[in-house]
Amino acid sequence: MSLEHHLRVVPDFPKAGVDFLDISPLLESPENLTALIEELAEASKQFEFSKIVAIESRGFILGSALALRLKKGFVMVRKKGKLPGEVVSMTYDLEYGTDTIEMLPTSLNSGEKVLVLDDVLATGGTAAAACDLVKKIGGQVTGCLFMVELDFLKGRDKIDHPVHSLIHRG
Amino acid sequence: MSLEHHLRVVPDFPKAGVDFLDISPLLESPENLTALIEELAEASKQFEFSKIVAIESRGFILGSALALRLKKGFVMVRKKGKLPGEVVSMTYDLEYGTDTIEMLPTSLNSGEKVLVLDDVLATGGTAAAACDLVKKIGGQVTGCLFMVELDFLKGRDKIDHPVHSLIHRG
Repeated sequence: MSLEHHLRVVPDFPKAGVDFLDISPLLESPENLTALIEELAEASKQFEFSKIVAIESRGFILGSALALRLKKGFVMVRKKGKLPGEVVSMTYDLEYGTDTIEMLPTSLNSGEKVLVLDDVLATGGTAAAACDLVKKIGGQVTGCLFMVELDFLKGRDKIDHPVHSLIHRG
Repeated sequence: MSLEHHLRVVPDFPKAGVDFLDISPLLESPENLTALIEELAEASKQFEFSKIVAIESRGFILGSALALRLKKGFVMVRKKGKLPGEVVSMTYDLEYGTDTIEMLPTSLNSGEKVLVLDDVLATGGTAAAACDLVKKIGGQVTGCLFMVELDFLKGRDKIDHPVHSLIHRG
């Protein structure tokens, strides 16, 4: 199946000049959803890991289904203020301002190998911060997996780990 | 497996006097995640549906894995401003103020039967609004499924559809 064929491109969202890639059509069809998770499962074979660290919130959609499929653990990276109790935080730069993501320090064992997963790799700021969070709580990132990579934004240059994306957009 | 045993209770989050139920320990273990999705799959058998409508963002975690397991379609209910292009919106009352959720009008076929899914049923405001959204775009809610229901908040009284929850907390 050509996954790319099922992406819906919405121009000028969330702002003028940006093409938003809507993954909804891939998720709405059971056949497409199964094919998508199978492609992610196949791509993930190159990495060794026991948990999938997924980035809120579309990363959650891919991450839990892939974790179920592969019989791996699932761990959340959430936006600031969403995780309860003691958390570890990482703040990173956006085009204008900053953003903060968080993980539970108890979510990984010491030295545990993880796959970081999100739907789209754009500028790489969030994914790089997620990798830093994993290290901060004692985990080890063995790879980063994305459904779509926007090559022209060079996000993978920000990530000090192997990166694989199913779909590349120039 | 007793799912409830694996919930982590975090007192006074997000505010004083509230016990937050953290589902992370259920997701972090492959065995627990598989058992959780199997229990949701079993419970969902009482409802007829072709798509799972999941509420952002912890509903996404349960929803996509369950959709994969059952070979159903997966549809997002998102917070305002997250879905691209034409959307339908529903605003509902909170304790203080209001909140708005959105769906893509193209995400369901006319008369299509859906299961509405979220992790926790509390006051029922969000779930009732999600059901209203489904109706607004021509779908039919045949049931609502939750991992945890906080019985004392009487959320199910707000929902005009069959409700099932795996775990009840008084």
